[in-house]
Amino acid sequence: MKFLRVNMTDLSLNYQDIPDEYSGLGGRGLTSVMINNEVPAQCDPLGPDNKLIFATGILTGTPLVNTSRVSVGGKSPLTGGIKESNAGGTFAASLGKLGINAIIVEGCPADEALYVLKINAEGEPSLVSASDYKGMRTYALTEKLFEVHGEKSSILCIGPAGEFKFKSASIQSTDVDNRPCRAAGRGGLGAVMGSKGLKAIVVDRNGKTPDELSDPAGFKEAAKALAEAIQSNGFTGVMLPSMGTAALVSVVNGMGAFPSYNATKGALEGSENISGEALAKTCQERGGQVGHQGCSQCIIRCSNVYVDKKGEYITGSLEYETLWSMGGMTGINDLDAVARLDFLCDDIGLDTMNTGAAIGVAMDCGRSEFGDGAAAEGMLEEIAAGTAFGSLLGNGPEAVGNSFNHSRIPVVKGQSIAAYDPRGMPANGVTYATSPMGADHTAGNLVGSYLAGALDPSDGKAQVQASREAQISMAGLDCTGLCLLAGSALGTPEAGAAFVKMLSIRLGVELGPDAMNEMGVRTLKAEIEFNKKAGFTSKDDRLPEFFKEEELPPNNSKFAIDDEDLDGVFDF
Amino acid sequence: MKFLRVNMTDLSLNYQDIPDEYSGLGGRGLTSVMINNEVPAQCDPLGPDNKLIFATGILTGTPLVNTSRVSVGGKSPLTGGIKESNAGGTFAASLGKLGINAIIVEGCPADEALYVLKINAEGEPSLVSASDYKGMRTYALTEKLFEVHGEKSSILCIGPAGEFKFKSASIQSTDVDNRPCRAAGRGGLGAVMGSKGLKAIVVDRNGKTPDELSDPAGFKEAAKALAEAIQSNGFTGVMLPSMGTAALVSVVNGMGAFPSYNATKGALEGSENISGEALAKTCQERGGQVGHQGCSQCIIRCSNVYVDKKGEYITGSLEYETLWSMGGMTGINDLDAVARLDFLCDDIGLDTMNTGAAIGVAMDCGRSEFGDGAAAEGMLEEIAAGTAFGSLLGNGPEAVGNSFNHSRIPVVKGQSIAAYDPRGMPANGVTYATSPMGADHTAGNLVGSYLAGALDPSDGKAQVQASREAQISMAGLDCTGLCLLAGSALGTPEAGAAFVKMLSIRLGVELGPDAMNEMGVRTLKAEIEFNKKAGFTSKDDRLPEFFKEEELPPNNSKFAIDDEDLDGVFDF
Repeated sequence: MKFLRVNMTDLSLNYQDIPDEYSGLGGRGLTSVMINNEVPAQCDPLGPDNKLIFATGILTGTPLVNTSRVSVGGKSPLTGGIKESNAGGTFAASLGKLGINAIIVEGCPADEALYVLKINAEGEPSLVSASDYKGMRTYALTEKLFEVHGEKSSILCIGPAGEFKFKSASIQSTDVDNRPCRAAGRGGLGAVMGSKGLKAIVVDRNGKTPDELSDPAGFKEAAKALAEAIQSNGFTGVMLPSMGTAALVSVVNGMGAFPSYNATKGALEGSENISGEALAKTCQERGGQVGHQGCSQCIIRCSNVYVDKKGEYITGSLEYETLWSMGGMTGINDLDAVARLDFLCDDIGLDTMNTGAAIGVAMDCGRSEFGDGAAAEGMLEEIAAGTAFGSLLGNGPEAVGNSFNHSRIPVVKGQSIAAYDPRGMPANGVTYATSPMGADHTAGNLVGSYLAGALDPSDGKAQVQASREAQISMAGLDCTGLCLLAGSALGTPEAGAAFVKMLSIRLGVELGPDAMNEMGVRTLKAEIEFNKKAGFTSKDDRLPEFFKEEELPPNNSKFAIDDEDLDGVFDF
Repeated sequence: MKFLRVNMTDLSLNYQDIPDEYSGLGGRGLTSVMINNEVPAQCDPLGPDNKLIFATGILTGTPLVNTSRVSVGGKSPLTGGIKESNAGGTFAASLGKLGINAIIVEGCPADEALYVLKINAEGEPSLVSASDYKGMRTYALTEKLFEVHGEKSSILCIGPAGEFKFKSASIQSTDVDNRPCRAAGRGGLGAVMGSKGLKAIVVDRNGKTPDELSDPAGFKEAAKALAEAIQSNGFTGVMLPSMGTAALVSVVNGMGAFPSYNATKGALEGSENISGEALAKTCQERGGQVGHQGCSQCIIRCSNVYVDKKGEYITGSLEYETLWSMGGMTGINDLDAVARLDFLCDDIGLDTMNTGAAIGVAMDCGRSEFGDGAAAEGMLEEIAAGTAFGSLLGNGPEAVGNSFNHSRIPVVKGQSIAAYDPRGMPANGVTYATSPMGADHTAGNLVGSYLAGALDPSDGKAQVQASREAQISMAGLDCTGLCLLAGSALGTPEAGAAFVKMLSIRLGVELGPDAMNEMGVRTLKAEIEFNKKAGFTSKDDRLPEFFKEEELPPNNSKFAIDDEDLDGVFDF
């Protein structure tokens, strides 16, 4: 178990044994505790005092399925607060094979120099000039990097948006087919990577020095139990392999909670054209793929390969949140157009959510018509070219709305909401408002409870309680490296117990049944503390006014949770 | 003595006797105390809860010369704090002739309706639709309004920038020749006027109901004494009539304190082309005018009429701060080009200072070359067209710099500095940092002390003390309606005593010799209190880091006043 510290000011590379203060941590827990300890909260997120941390989960590098999530953490240039955004693909698994638990990137190069960080199969790190790759988009870049470093590599990289340090810049992650179509999208961490002069990290996939387990047989048994739970669960075993997360389009739209046309409506006209059903059918007819494996060790296969009428690749891993942001928010109900927008975001290195929401705001400001796919593509090209309009769009919905004096800006702490309108799913609104991450769909999402009829949207106290519990349990899950979709299979007592057993074996300590929540609370405490030091107050834990003032058709509801209730979500 | 309350929500118009709490106040003191009393500090500056107040000075409407300043106050969309910006011209004098001490504009029209507020010679107010004037620039607009309402009118109005609600939008004021070339430029109050749906205020110049004075003969005698002091003073009696405020270009540039090329240098190459001497010579050769009277009752005549080679009007009242912002900051050392930029700003309704600084930042970001006048004109036209780039430029240097991730943004509280670099004139830096107005050249300017050798820039404590005293005395002067240039003649005991005598007669109370400072302190207290309620802390009372980190050539000085000293400027 070790950390790799990379200093971009003096280009030094040093392995470090894990200090006691960070033992027992992984993923988001590790990045958040470390940032709270080591990064001055008031620092410039794009300056030398910020750190960019890539951490594997506690269970990454073990035989357990679905654990190839890499958490990326830092102070966010978008929210001004602490940030963790995690991505799938092969990268985390490759770090796990080398027994590397985190890469901590510090400092900034004095000049505009650009580097690739390479870690070979022996775990030897080196910094190589990336001046030839300046301005390259991610598909061309990764093709080149696989040529140079071999097909058996895992890559994290940024595109032009990250080099421009735009606040919606993502860090793209290559999938099992070596396509950079997965992303740590949120919070502008791609801009932080850009500010560090780091164009890409390339890790050999053939590492042979994973951390050893104290009880490999016990671990194997528990891992098998969890894998079976995942495969026998209706959501992870049936729905996701058949349609992916896109399955949610029809149901959320049907509930009237699918924020559309910059959140002026709760249902998209022609939503059936961009539904999970349409996606699966189109992929099958054209020779694309649903039930595609995107991440190392994945048995769910929620991913897809989307192709055009000629069968040629358009994009990979077209997900629900992107169908919403590039479809719902923009009113573009054309699946091919949305797929191209998804590809362009991956290629330019942009968070599809913040960017789609920014396009929606621009359309709402009259910069183009809702539903105009060609205009949206043009906007993405403006971002890639770094024009003035592109800089607004690339910096997100707030930059666009502020510039054009538009008051309907669907963000919290500067970050766009996700594909669940807080007027239809108020507990998600509570999460948007109070998560230290800004508005977020992975920080405590209650969509499953609403769809199951287990949460009554009109019960205010229940929303707050549900959000609180979900935020804590998600923060815990984010420490483990298990993907959140797989995490939804942890609900049975057997699966839960198997999971805690694996964590205990991995960490070499006997954990109690509440271990996950304890990790979650520890993580959230560090995040809340950092944000407070950065200057956040309860005023930052609020939804934009329009959610409270404008009714959402067709159900005509408003967001009505009291401020005091929002302030009571976290009492630690 | 009365107030006119104009409610733009229900279009009601009501005169009001002056409430006791506002007695004894005028100008900035009146607007600031009233805003602090009546405007919720956390409100949206462009929403219905903000108020836009037009106040005459205490001595406006009396026979005293140089008292036609109108103070405009509100919560600023640029700084987020309290704002007063005052303008010359004929408007204040016309209000004075009607005995109107303030017009208070409240609420917002529900629709996008646009109005002209008209006040006739009998003081009868009315709101007239301005839908025909939508989008009009100020020269064409005022020409039309003078046609409709008669040549003997005074007009305040906004251009396209105010209608777009851009944060650098000004309120333009017509001069004695009926040209809208004078401005309440700072703080984006033109955007507030736009948000109120108010395109213009037209006041008949022939009002016949001024407030009566208790001792007209005593007043006249004192007024005569002050007028003589103004005319016998070297600055107000000789330098300003011959070159206007442009006289400062040579001397400040010679000191190396003329912020140039986005404040990367302290002297402009070719500054002699845009100096006061060059301006006077060009005006004389071409048949323009220096020593021009711009404001009612003005005996200083600091204004000018700048014409092209054929003798045709380019702009009026080309001032030092504009020669700096459009010349120094942009590196454009071509007087005709700067004059055209000044005209365009007046015509579009833009603060020349914030806008020139925004262009300078855009040039520093590589959006065009320093010194390119045609590019700068193109940028102003983008603002007028409301393009994306135009919206950045129209929202000021911070919007531009933030969008392009540029760290050299010469603003405090969002507002650009003025034509005195804080590294060369640190007391002006103290004023920029600590004035409740944001960076400002009228809130406490020590240029005269530096030029006279009376203030040593290396003595830190002396800078703080000088700024404090200047800020208090300027806040006092801003209550009276006397123009600050005329105010520089108040230094002799005789002139000072005459001035206090006139204030006493006007207010009907016997004021002590320290009355001006008392008004200043009362005004500043209200402003500081409002800003605190709006969320400002000592962190907002700081210069941008680059002034402390980058040396300013040719003298290579940095700004080195301690934060604690800045925090000690106001102890009340």
